[in-house]
Amino acid sequence: MTETMSRPQAATLVLNAADNVAVALSNLDVGTMTPQGVTTLKRVPKGHKFATRAISTGSAVVKFGQIIGFASKDIPAGEWVHEHNCGMGGADGSLAHDYAFSEGVVAPDMVPEAQRATFQGYRRANGKVGTRNYIGILTSVNCSATVAKFMAQEISRSGLLDDYPEIDGVIPFVHGTGCAMDLDGEGYHILRRTQWGYASNPNLGGVLLVGLGCEAFQIGRMKEAYGIVEDETFQTMTIQEIGGTRKMVDWGVERIRDMLPIAARARRETVPASELTLALQCGGSDGYSGITANPALGVAADLLVKQGGTAILSETPEIYGAEHLLTRRAVSREVGEKLIERIHWWEDYTARNRGEMNNNPSPGNKLGGLTTILEKSLGAAAKGGSTPLTAVYEYAEPVTEKGFVFMDTPGFDPVSATGQVAGGANVLAFTTGRGSAYGCKPVPSIKLATNSDLYRRMGEDMDMNCGDIAEGLADVDRKGAEIFDMILRVASGERTKSEELGYGDNEFVPWQVGAVM
Amino acid sequence: MTETMSRPQAATLVLNAADNVAVALSNLDVGTMTPQGVTTLKRVPKGHKFATRAISTGSAVVKFGQIIGFASKDIPAGEWVHEHNCGMGGADGSLAHDYAFSEGVVAPDMVPEAQRATFQGYRRANGKVGTRNYIGILTSVNCSATVAKFMAQEISRSGLLDDYPEIDGVIPFVHGTGCAMDLDGEGYHILRRTQWGYASNPNLGGVLLVGLGCEAFQIGRMKEAYGIVEDETFQTMTIQEIGGTRKMVDWGVERIRDMLPIAARARRETVPASELTLALQCGGSDGYSGITANPALGVAADLLVKQGGTAILSETPEIYGAEHLLTRRAVSREVGEKLIERIHWWEDYTARNRGEMNNNPSPGNKLGGLTTILEKSLGAAAKGGSTPLTAVYEYAEPVTEKGFVFMDTPGFDPVSATGQVAGGANVLAFTTGRGSAYGCKPVPSIKLATNSDLYRRMGEDMDMNCGDIAEGLADVDRKGAEIFDMILRVASGERTKSEELGYGDNEFVPWQVGAVM
Ligand SMILES: [Ca+2]
Ligand SMILES: [Ca+2]
Ligand SMILES: [Ca+2]
Ligand SMILES: [Ca+2]
Ligand SMILES: [Ca+2]
Repeated sequence: MTETMSRPQAATLVLNAADNVAVALSNLDVGTMTPQGVTTLKRVPKGHKFATRAISTGSAVVKFGQIIGFASKDIPAGEWVHEHNCGMGGADGSLAHDYAFSEGVVAPDMVPEAQRATFQGYRRANGKVGTRNYIGILTSVNCSATVAKFMAQEISRSGLLDDYPEIDGVIPFVHGTGCAMDLDGEGYHILRRTQWGYASNPNLGGVLLVGLGCEAFQIGRMKEAYGIVEDETFQTMTIQEIGGTRKMVDWGVERIRDMLPIAARARRETVPASELTLALQCGGSDGYSGITANPALGVAADLLVKQGGTAILSETPEIYGAEHLLTRRAVSREVGEKLIERIHWWEDYTARNRGEMNNNPSPGNKLGGLTTILEKSLGAAAKGGSTPLTAVYEYAEPVTEKGFVFMDTPGFDPVSATGQVAGGANVLAFTTGRGSAYGCKPVPSIKLATNSDLYRRMGEDMDMNCGDIAEGLADVDRKGAEIFDMILRVASGERTKSEELGYGDNEFVPWQVGAVM
Repeated sequence: MTETMSRPQAATLVLNAADNVAVALSNLDVGTMTPQGVTTLKRVPKGHKFATRAISTGSAVVKFGQIIGFASKDIPAGEWVHEHNCGMGGADGSLAHDYAFSEGVVAPDMVPEAQRATFQGYRRANGKVGTRNYIGILTSVNCSATVAKFMAQEISRSGLLDDYPEIDGVIPFVHGTGCAMDLDGEGYHILRRTQWGYASNPNLGGVLLVGLGCEAFQIGRMKEAYGIVEDETFQTMTIQEIGGTRKMVDWGVERIRDMLPIAARARRETVPASELTLALQCGGSDGYSGITANPALGVAADLLVKQGGTAILSETPEIYGAEHLLTRRAVSREVGEKLIERIHWWEDYTARNRGEMNNNPSPGNKLGGLTTILEKSLGAAAKGGSTPLTAVYEYAEPVTEKGFVFMDTPGFDPVSATGQVAGGANVLAFTTGRGSAYGCKPVPSIKLATNSDLYRRMGEDMDMNCGDIAEGLADVDRKGAEIFDMILRVASGERTKSEELGYGDNEFVPWQVGAVM
């Protein structure tokens, strides 16, 4: 009580003006007077919800401005809201999946072009804009991983990069697949899209693609599929064609030497924020993710969309069971149906791998205060903000629509982000509660801590603390604006913590689908 | 004809004294007199077979000393043997799969203990013998890949290893999985066996296992499963526990500094060849693989088994359809049935991944002279020699039986070899026709070229040429003895080409089975 009185703003959090519940930011005893003007009728544990006004049986419980469930009995104001009085509704206890395609579309309040924010980016020949200027060495197969690493090491060892301050570095993109796979299978097509997506990412000023020669992932076949012609900033070679490891490394080092002066001609120039494609990620989530960093990042995503830019939400398993929250925002029935098709694909994918889709709150989630699958998924989806869903993409497909889009990926951070970068993301924002060590190349990754304890413990890895929202020391809207500003600065060249630490050479992980033969 | 007369031994090859076909080593025109004393009745293309004596309809066609098919019409001596006159027999055209468990077991002619070959190895506290002495940094998840690389780089940069010539290096074993997986699934158990198998491999004198903290692959759970207690040469830590990237790298570098003097106490001593566990591999096979390097490696495997050692054949998809060749050699019905069970597992694994098992000769194989699935599989299995099959293991299981054993793995080289090394292999022999760039750490990998052209083109990557067998300049038995001698020398410390080149830091690829969530 004393605590409540000394800093009442710190004790509770209302996430949206439309909400009829608030979140307790510390354990609230029975009889606590809250800033919402109601007195708690039961003990409300930290992270749990209480009703800020009466909710009658069958009425919607609203958090994040969205329905998270329905009252299963009359809930008086001040009552603790959880499983005992809030469920998914419907006759069978589960909310019917009404996709309500496009019914929730609200046109975003676009910033007039003349007033739009800008950043300093690298405008490429094809019109796309990079936020970094790297040389990439892609590998068709694990068998060419070591030569790619050796090329990058040799360039680094040579000191040659000292002559090119305009080049951020040389990245070997190595992985564990590329052979012993079905040549017409999903896994092959995913890998091919990923490779070409990286090769096309505007953060790369030059690209080598190196192979062994006899692998299933044939470089020639990829070139044919995309009509790729080699030129001064895109070259390919195989170890078998050139005659061994040493000759291959020499070849690569020479090609990079030739590419460096060309790539180094790039200069940053003022470009509109609409040229940003922001990858949204979370990893190592905790009970704070859904109430601090994720909604704040959602505000930043909304700001970017209103500037004409693009934000990519992904991690399909984490929105599973709440896909109708996104279909309501789909700009068309077709876009919404593509999402549903991916959901069905996942049900089949997990079933054939002897698993199942299950995003229900775990016992740990429930202890932490999450009541329904909707509430859990909303916490994850919150980083996507509230603007209309303009497109749905498969893994690593080129993102061509502006606005808020969804790309189907696993939840696993490096695999998900690899798909987004292949899709054309040029900046990435990553919320974490447990403390992620992820970093990306060639795309800068902004790490947002969901709680202040994490920010203190792993501050050298975190770019911003969003935990102060839960302490009543910041609000979601202001934090979102701060994130948006940081995105512009980072896009303009300010280095993130993970870039300073040197992350990104080991996090290229294309999604492996299908049997390894 | 002139060529045949000038060097008749070069023109044909008989692989086993029991064979009734010989292989043409160059195109043989009609009417060519062969060293087998028969005159060709049709043109026999290079790599194809001709009958060295008459084979009547329904009789067995024998190559590698084993049945590769049955005459579908009477075949006179000197006739070209291929699909037009040789099939799989049986009413439906396919040889019935008679597993004939153990019927082909011939006890190997063991070398008396007093006469056994020796090598210079590192005897470990648990009795196992290493052929190298590395420090390994294992990673529970991709999220700890970068800190592992940084630890190894920092040790390398510090020059500290100069003080420890007895240490071969520090290896970061990074990979793209460890999270977003089913915690009771096959994929999880495979990864856990692989990690502990590497930690236990006698080629590692000290091990760190580093994680992020919140990953699915929990280090604590692995320690519990295997009853692992940390000690001066096995230590674990997570980034979240220690508080970030920099502290984690500092911790790892300090732990390695502490381990180096301990691991450096190891000294090579004379140990019997029976302490060798040889991993058999092939990759980038060609039409020569089955007649040069593979049978020669099979001879070496037999020599090792007769010395009391162990040879591991793997790559299940490459013996598929010819598994009854191995069940005949199984020491017991139980061992044979375990192989069949794995074959059935693969049929299910590929079916549920929308593929199929199919090891039939491809059009290219057929053009090259391979007639039946048995002939193709025998070419691959030839590297396993002819001694009894003493055990069958699942991927990454500890190999505890001596003699010739089978481990179920995919054919993909890095994935297959990773399973074998986890099983305890301390030396590896790898045949290649197209030219593999594979190299392994911590296990030396001997690269055997199947043809002289490859040996000339990629000689800097190849340890030995077996192509001279096809030129009549070497014979399989003598080549096998040379390989066995090289195995002993390499096990004693002689460095292979792939070690000189520096391979092995990017080829740790645990088999990923199951959905990525
Ligand atoms: Ca080329
Ligand atoms: Ca994630
Ligand atoms: Ca520890
Ligand atoms: Ca092979
Ligand atoms: Ca192989």
